[in-house]
Amino acid sequence: MRYSVLNGGKRIRPLLTLATCHMVGADEREGIIPACAVELVHCYSLIHDDLPCLDNDETRRSKPTCHKKFGEAVALLAGDALLTLAFGVVAEMKDASKAHRILQELAHAAGTSGMVGGQVLEMMAGQEEMTLPILESIHIQKTGQLIKTSCLAGAVAGASDATQQAKVIKFGEYLGFAFQIVDDILDGNGYLRFMGAHEAGEKAAELVASAKREIAAFGNYEKLDKIADFVLTRLR
Amino acid sequence: MRYSVLNGGKRIRPLLTLATCHMVGADEREGIIPACAVELVHCYSLIHDDLPCLDNDETRRSKPTCHKKFGEAVALLAGDALLTLAFGVVAEMKDASKAHRILQELAHAAGTSGMVGGQVLEMMAGQEEMTLPILESIHIQKTGQLIKTSCLAGAVAGASDATQQAKVIKFGEYLGFAFQIVDDILDGNGYLRFMGAHEAGEKAAELVASAKREIAAFGNYEKLDKIADFVLTRLR
Repeated sequence: MRYSVLNGGKRIRPLLTLATCHMVGADEREGIIPACAVELVHCYSLIHDDLPCLDNDETRRSKPTCHKKFGEAVALLAGDALLTLAFGVVAEMKDASKAHRILQELAHAAGTSGMVGGQVLEMMAGQEEMTLPILESIHIQKTGQLIKTSCLAGAVAGASDATQQAKVIKFGEYLGFAFQIVDDILDGNGYLRFMGAHEAGEKAAELVASAKREIAAFGNYEKLDKIADFVLTRLR
Repeated sequence: MRYSVLNGGKRIRPLLTLATCHMVGADEREGIIPACAVELVHCYSLIHDDLPCLDNDETRRSKPTCHKKFGEAVALLAGDALLTLAFGVVAEMKDASKAHRILQELAHAAGTSGMVGGQVLEMMAGQEEMTLPILESIHIQKTGQLIKTSCLAGAVAGASDATQQAKVIKFGEYLGFAFQIVDDILDGNGYLRFMGAHEAGEKAAELVASAKREIAAFGNYEKLDKIADFVLTRLR
């Protein structure tokens, strides 16, 4: 579990949680538990995705994947334990009402409507002809939902109101979409089956601009704005 | 997911939840969500335990295991989705405070202090000499914690007080221990490495009697009492 979590990831999701919590006017520390929860869900998904029966990857960030280092059984269980721990840390929030709401969002983002559903869609689509709408559905479920939830969880932890949360959700949706297009450009697949890298890059830039417009009226939007810019910076 | 959940299991865990909820004086229906949650956690654990990298089982209840029927990738993801769904249904409880408490207990029972931890202990012990204390630790973590949580979740859902919950916890601990000894007798391993079947059966009967003593003062203890008896009936 430690090997796969403490491995130098970019921590984009928890940074989004903390920056959103700050943006809605709360102390960033109010968001630390949901920030950990979304990162733990992300880490579990990487371990399971790397397993031989799925992507069969041997390295991640230039180090052996969890199952290459510790064997498949330990990797399976480390993933299971990290997913469980993600929900366990949400239970550590003192405010039961916030924990309840974040639990709902996290379960939705991780389950059949989110990451697992997206993975299954991708496996099924691999056997059929891929279309742009199917690819976008896969992206939204596999990646978009957790990125949106990372932002929303920060807003919930920061005691924001429904109007603020609606803007944060839109920000997260735009940004999650942009994030995945950038990933596809860097990996040379996915979106690049349907458009050139330049066009895809422009689409990602438009999405980031739309995301930033959603948060422009918040008092402390600057940190979140910088993370949105960072998503595009990866292309340079 | 449906194949592995709707497969004719005994449903001991959710029955414990409902019977405990009834025992503490609430309508049984108050316990339906935590009852589903504990059964979903149980079902996920069976799918993952059956995988080739762990027990490599080909059949369960005379039918092909999930990975034999649908392939390893789908089985891995079905387990992940069932674990996520277990937490997702807890989030559906209207009372945020009860959901919060049940979430804590469920994450504890499923994670490194419970089921995953017990599985890892078992893998490690397989390489060393097994002792009775190690075997008992494995049993408590792998099976006991979720059985105890199944009872406690029913008590929490039924709005019991701390004194009642303390008795329910003891009931669940005794019963979980008895349950696992009976399993070992039926499977012909585990406890039978350290004592004869007759002696193990007497130990299980003593544990069930201790469990029943804990709940004897409750008003509606009869249903839970019958489930405790059923654990021993399996030996006949």
